[in-house]
Amino acid sequence: MTDAELQAGLLGGDRRALARAITLVESARPDHRARAARLLGAVADPSRDTLRLGLSGTPGVGKSTFIERFGLDRVAEGHRVAVLAVDPSSARSGGSILGDKTRMERLARAPAAFIRPSPSQTELGGVARRTREVIALCEAAGFDLIVVETVGVGQSETLVAQMTDIFVLLLAPGGGDELQGVKRGIMEIADLILVNKADGDMRRQAEATRAEYQGALRLLRRRAGDPDGYPAALAVSALDATGMAAAWDAMAALAAHRRASGRFAATRAAQNRHAFEDAVRQGLLRHLTADPGTRDRMAALGRSVAAGQVAPAAAADEILRAILGAAGTGGEGA
Amino acid sequence: MTDAELQAGLLGGDRRALARAITLVESARPDHRARAARLLGAVADPSRDTLRLGLSGTPGVGKSTFIERFGLDRVAEGHRVAVLAVDPSSARSGGSILGDKTRMERLARAPAAFIRPSPSQTELGGVARRTREVIALCEAAGFDLIVVETVGVGQSETLVAQMTDIFVLLLAPGGGDELQGVKRGIMEIADLILVNKADGDMRRQAEATRAEYQGALRLLRRRAGDPDGYPAALAVSALDATGMAAAWDAMAALAAHRRASGRFAATRAAQNRHAFEDAVRQGLLRHLTADPGTRDRMAALGRSVAAGQVAPAAAADEILRAILGAAGTGGEGA
Repeated sequence: MTDAELQAGLLGGDRRALARAITLVESARPDHRARAARLLGAVADPSRDTLRLGLSGTPGVGKSTFIERFGLDRVAEGHRVAVLAVDPSSARSGGSILGDKTRMERLARAPAAFIRPSPSQTELGGVARRTREVIALCEAAGFDLIVVETVGVGQSETLVAQMTDIFVLLLAPGGGDELQGVKRGIMEIADLILVNKADGDMRRQAEATRAEYQGALRLLRRRAGDPDGYPAALAVSALDATGMAAAWDAMAALAAHRRASGRFAATRAAQNRHAFEDAVRQGLLRHLTADPGTRDRMAALGRSVAAGQVAPAAAADEILRAILGAAGTGGEGA
Repeated sequence: MTDAELQAGLLGGDRRALARAITLVESARPDHRARAARLLGAVADPSRDTLRLGLSGTPGVGKSTFIERFGLDRVAEGHRVAVLAVDPSSARSGGSILGDKTRMERLARAPAAFIRPSPSQTELGGVARRTREVIALCEAAGFDLIVVETVGVGQSETLVAQMTDIFVLLLAPGGGDELQGVKRGIMEIADLILVNKADGDMRRQAEATRAEYQGALRLLRRRAGDPDGYPAALAVSALDATGMAAAWDAMAALAAHRRASGRFAATRAAQNRHAFEDAVRQGLLRHLTADPGTRDRMAALGRSVAAGQVAPAAAADEILRAILGAAGTGGEGA
């Protein structure tokens, strides 16, 4: 498949082309990176009408059941749904490549749905870049609803929140957020808290938990420009499919409000800019260890500095001049 | 004063030369930086036998009284004592240039003592570099005991611990460390905790506080290679001059033990190397905003990225190639 064929296949919604394109953006090979950059540039279309949902939930809250039910409902309405995972632990565990598809079996078989496991990668920054690019590819292939799920370990929620339009936190009834392993700060980034398992014996407790969170959310500052009632807390049962339509309505209404106010587009623009600046910073720092010449020079100067023969700042200036040229060292902006 | 005269004066212990040299290393002007680097290289002598003490204490614990008493005692023993301050708030408050000398009036007048206020600088990294270089200049001028004091705001303790041989935490009786505004993690870096104001009515409470901290310190892992009993907690009164000799003995004994084991030299070498690597990282990141060409290119690409015309990673690659050349982008080390 030539790059032109890949591009045409992708824009035509061909799943094989999408899978190939994803392999390309997930590759670390410089020639692949260059081809991926060209492809992403060629298929970019900021006017595409898509919605990116971030979904966080610790293991045991029924995340897979929720996504399957939610995804099938959207597919039935005519949406094309892509489910991506950001799992910082997948590098260690060998990935959830089989797991992701088997735990959402019906959705995985739906022609209008696409499920992609987390790229295995030790560096969270690398996962972020790849996931962001996979979102762009899925949207180019015609998927208009992207669900990015994360298990809420380490910094993955913040990362997912920075690449999605609406962030949903899925909780189980009772226990409180700390007992459920939800980290501090997540409440602050959630647009919607869904208390799952509001079914059978748990129904009453789910409602009590929901009311508690609604109370807690009221204490938080409302996000500038959002309508009354947000961030909101709802009780749902993915198993019984109760409250699921209301949950989607709440997401859709918030998205519509933000689109109308211009905040939707402004947030995406800020996210892109942030991702760009972050990639520059990480790339610069990576150069110190990735470039053999710089690495050797750092090691040699490090020895002289450690021995007290050269002042740390003078040695740093020497490295910076070697990397950046004469413009490299202009003091500290004091 | 030519640079050769400055160097000779500094090594001869001339206070005017020391003050001039400090002005030079505190300057942000590139030509001053270059001259300072040459001077620091020329006067460097790793074989100098000096001791660098870090001293942290929140306002109200009697830090000035302690340093004055401690400094005068060392001067009486024949030491030459330099007192430097790292105060991250001095940039805001306009500096403690008058304050530092007036609050240690007798020490400030002692011919064998030198007191230098914190450089006013908004960037903590800049304060660290300057203070490290002022230490080197003071040592070149014959000061063998350097006290670097900090008020314990922000990250200043960690910073001071990274440029000193022994780190002392000064506390007031009672209250507990949290009530006294001591941040978590400081206990872990302290070699010695001194409970000051063990005089008059406070004497009993100071002893109780000391015992509490000694108990807490026992729970912490002893630093590899340090003798039994360290980190230690002692009660002192800088006002009555009780316990002050024992406190100095505890510092001197620890320093002697570490010198004999080789850890003293190894720590200084590691500190220098860390300062060097940190200065390189900070210099690289500073380039993004300090270099006009890079800054303009970042802004222009940032706009394209925000508008969705260029993928963040592709734009980052372009900047990195411009800064680092072809070697700049070799994937993410995946």
